Amino acid sequence: MFCERPTRFFLTAGAGDASNALNAFDAALLDAGVGDTNLVKLSSILPPGVTETKAFPLPKGSFVPLAYAECVSDQPGQRISAAVAVGIPVDENEAGLIMECSGLGDPDIWEQQARYMVIEGMEGVRKRPIKEIKSIAATVVVKSVGAVFAGVILCP
Amino acid sequence: MFCERPTRFFLTAGAGDASNALNAFDAALLDAGVGDTNLVKLSSILPPGVTETKAFPLPKGSFVPLAYAECVSDQPGQRISAAVAVGIPVDENEAGLIMECSGLGDPDIWEQQARYMVIEGMEGVRKRPIKEIKSIAATVVVKSVGAVFAGVILCP
Amino acid sequence: MFCERPTRFFLTAGAGDASNALNAFDAALLDAGVGDTNLVKLSSILPPGVTETKAFPLPKGSFVPLAYAECVSDQPGQRISAAVAVGIPVDENEAGLIMECSGLGDPDIWEQQARYMVIEGMEGVRKRPIKEIKSIAATVVVKSVGAVFAGVILCP
Repeated sequence: MFCERPTRFFLTAGAGDASNALNAFDAALLDAGVGDTNLVKLSSILPPGVTETKAFPLPKGSFVPLAYAECVSDQPGQRISAAVAVGIPVDENEAGLIMECSGLGDPDIWEQQARYMVIEGMEGVRKRPIKEIKSIAATVVVKSVGAVFAGVILCP
Repeated sequence: MFCERPTRFFLTAGAGDASNALNAFDAALLDAGVGDTNLVKLSSILPPGVTETKAFPLPKGSFVPLAYAECVSDQPGQRISAAVAVGIPVDENEAGLIMECSGLGDPDIWEQQARYMVIEGMEGVRKRPIKEIKSIAATVVVKSVGAVFAGVILCP
Repeated sequence: MFCERPTRFFLTAGAGDASNALNAFDAALLDAGVGDTNLVKLSSILPPGVTETKAFPLPKGSFVPLAYAECVSDQPGQRISAAVAVGIPVDENEAGLIMECSGLGDPDIWEQQARYMVIEGMEGVRKRPIKEIKSIAATVVVKSVGAVFAGVILCP
């Protein structure tokens, strides 16, 4: 549940299409494996000492803290993408930084942008050396109303 | 408090009018009976096994997880409405789905739309049979700045 | 952590500038002393009985419930400001109200507006006498992409 201190994280992403924006976003969450949970949006910090895990099914309806990017479009034929990146610091007692971005076009563009934003925030602003950057992106070509989602999930 | 696993839910809705958007939204929350709590927005899943309760006063200032729709307008004379619907699955071990929508016009339009969105997400996307759909809507004709709110509240 | 009942609060504000909106907002949070935490946005009520404390460093990565105002601009030379105000009721068993606003121009304008919004919500709508209003604002003249943040932090 939400009140437990997170000890692990995983990255996940997905895409969906539906008759309207909210159903499309819901379909993208299902595609990403977090569709039957209650996402609670955070301002995007990786707590010190949390370790990466493989994506796994979270309890249905549970409160899931995360940072995420999303994009929705109702223009058939349009490609949309969303990406997140997380910077893991060299110093294990320090916080990492999660960055999110999304928009029109290829996923590589946005994934690179998210990684750049992590570098700017960690090494540029915080002067905090990065051990590793992990990132993920989702993309879709809109059929009716399309949505993409990419997130960093914190879990116990 | 927020960390307790929810066991119950209720639907509520309200409307307000004020000199600005935030005060109008605050007045709508008070009208709905949740105005002195700290709402925490969720991505809209009804956890398995939670049961409906009548609306009741939540502790002042407590953290209240919910899914909600809202609409604000500064056009006097305009009618605005907000609606939520929740689909309760036949299978009690499965999650239910909450959908939200809002905009100009009569509340019936938006309440029907929210119910349709639940059907699309539950039966269309998830192939999960619905036992029952519950819904609620709020509406107001704007005087100065108007706001409407409709939500599904999760509570211990 | 987030599940503990808040017993204290503090006001803080900050400004930042970066190559994009999210990095600028992140820099503003760091300037305000909450940049390495996970902010969880609330609908803006001060629980009864919480007392003001000086700003202090929150655990890195912890979930921090708060109400906040923000503003971002990519127009170099533009002045942007954000403000929050909190109304503390005479009756210690009652909830207080937090109001947020932001936009172009001097911080005094927005801080006065936030204080006015508290009076409207507390004395106008709730008929709840105010003991004291506390407020804070941040301001910046945009260099590349600027962001300002002002928040009321709830803490154990």
